[in-house]
Amino acid sequence: MSLQTPTATTPIILTGDRPTGPLHLGHFVGSLRNRVTYQDEYRQFIMLADAQALTDNMDDIGKVHRNVIEVALDYLAVGIDPAKSTILIQSQIPELAELTFYYLNLVTVARLERNPTVKQEIIMRGFERDIPAGFLTYPASQAADISAFKATIVPVGEDQIPMIEQCNEIVRKFNRNAGRDILVECKAIVPEVGRLPGIDGKAKMSKSLGNTINLGASADEIRAAVKMVYTDPLHLKVSDPGHLEGNVAFLYLDAFDTDKAGLAEMKAHYVRGGLGDSVVKKRLEGILQDMLAPIRARREELAKDKGQVMQILKDGTMKARDVAARTTDEVRKALGLSYF
Amino acid sequence: MSLQTPTATTPIILTGDRPTGPLHLGHFVGSLRNRVTYQDEYRQFIMLADAQALTDNMDDIGKVHRNVIEVALDYLAVGIDPAKSTILIQSQIPELAELTFYYLNLVTVARLERNPTVKQEIIMRGFERDIPAGFLTYPASQAADISAFKATIVPVGEDQIPMIEQCNEIVRKFNRNAGRDILVECKAIVPEVGRLPGIDGKAKMSKSLGNTINLGASADEIRAAVKMVYTDPLHLKVSDPGHLEGNVAFLYLDAFDTDKAGLAEMKAHYVRGGLGDSVVKKRLEGILQDMLAPIRARREELAKDKGQVMQILKDGTMKARDVAARTTDEVRKALGLSYF
Repeated sequence: MSLQTPTATTPIILTGDRPTGPLHLGHFVGSLRNRVTYQDEYRQFIMLADAQALTDNMDDIGKVHRNVIEVALDYLAVGIDPAKSTILIQSQIPELAELTFYYLNLVTVARLERNPTVKQEIIMRGFERDIPAGFLTYPASQAADISAFKATIVPVGEDQIPMIEQCNEIVRKFNRNAGRDILVECKAIVPEVGRLPGIDGKAKMSKSLGNTINLGASADEIRAAVKMVYTDPLHLKVSDPGHLEGNVAFLYLDAFDTDKAGLAEMKAHYVRGGLGDSVVKKRLEGILQDMLAPIRARREELAKDKGQVMQILKDGTMKARDVAARTTDEVRKALGLSYF
Repeated sequence: MSLQTPTATTPIILTGDRPTGPLHLGHFVGSLRNRVTYQDEYRQFIMLADAQALTDNMDDIGKVHRNVIEVALDYLAVGIDPAKSTILIQSQIPELAELTFYYLNLVTVARLERNPTVKQEIIMRGFERDIPAGFLTYPASQAADISAFKATIVPVGEDQIPMIEQCNEIVRKFNRNAGRDILVECKAIVPEVGRLPGIDGKAKMSKSLGNTINLGASADEIRAAVKMVYTDPLHLKVSDPGHLEGNVAFLYLDAFDTDKAGLAEMKAHYVRGGLGDSVVKKRLEGILQDMLAPIRARREELAKDKGQVMQILKDGTMKARDVAARTTDEVRKALGLSYF
């Protein structure tokens, strides 16, 4: 069902990315291609979380700015349609910082420290004792982002579910203090196909691990990456039986090959022996080249007129700001912070 | 020297109050009367810190709102002149929340936890483990308030000096990251006459201790309060020698009696015996009645037209917002958060 005119009951989605680098196949599988579907069913806000990206990039000012346009190009290239989805730049909606400021009073330090997502990311980013306050408090910021747009659905990875719980706690506490339901609780949805492994077989495709295939990758880059894709280290001779577990070539085929029967046949052949990696990789490369070629072409076309892309971001941001400003106004009034 | 037109080198003061109750003699001695002097020499911003007051008043929404106008009446009644001082309402300048949001990335959780002022206030307010995040992070908010107006002077009590140090740390870190001096460091000034004891002899006059004399007190209230003023518990008979140490009646006379010779004579008489408390209190009451009568009269006059007071707050807030918006714009640009 395509809803051209969202009604009051149309579910509202908030989703987005920290613009710290170009998007890759992992993003495509985990979120981007779902968003292309969502935009026909829901009212979708897609946020370029530049302000949040600063929490651990204060020493590389400029990186975030540069990547905003790159990520926007990725969005548009994969088929996110600004007529259906509202793409916004977080920092250009100061109401989000204002809501964060208020929500900080609704969550205790101890509660933030117990948040499993925050705990895990603190370890992952190597902060230990030198945690920037903005990092510890980012659940409040995320609650601001979600609630500003009164989002009812937030697509997240399994590991982000505690953030959604924390957001709803803040929402409930705020409404209780206000004595009426001003903010809206949201529901996490976890995509079926979650995480794509890196080409090296590591659990996660990630720019910082250098194991990605970017959406804007050239044909040569795709070819080179597929050559490096991790398969079965025990599959030394073509005649050897091969293993599928942890075999990235087949994991990628699972994710992208639409000829499920052909793929099942190939798997069976690989397992019983007599099928070389090169044949599997050729199939994979063909599929990736076919899939990424039009994305790359659209990306290159769009990149010729960055002014137009910025205009799309500006329009989306202004539209989103209207929504956020209305919510913030309600919040301010409920807090008694309205005078003139 | 009265500076009608502040120049670029005119020192800028930021000062203010959390509007959680009417102001009293303690405020008058510790800050208000200094502000009346400062406004002739400096460019002075006086902030009604309503958003900050929420950090520990989220469960009594409305209290802060109500007290904004009460505190504004106190300001105007004691002689703060909106033509010389800019009176602003914190929450109506969302740029302050935005700056706070960025500054949270420039200070670690550990550093905030070490802040002696924060530590002490956490104990004072009985937060222990349930510290609202907004309370732990309020040094970042205070740094936002100070730096938004590029204040160079901040009058504070002795116990607030660590807040100023923390502010300057954030300012330096920001400027270092930005590669140029955008924000300005400030200097704390501690008023000579600091804290006024409560009428009960407790170290601090404080609304929550119920030991205040409010600036808007009626003649009867002043009389009743002076009667209760703590003197010398050993001074039982008029003929007994009296003690001045901790004697609130004399501490108040020290603060408000301009006839220093007459006061010295009275003290000598009291110490050698033969002078009853009632005589001392009569002198004190006379002085307080004379001092507070015109303040009360102006306050009552002003309270007749609250619309006009709100207009003063609106004008001041708009003027202050212009300044804060300029600084925030510079900050956003330096962080690469400027796009359109």
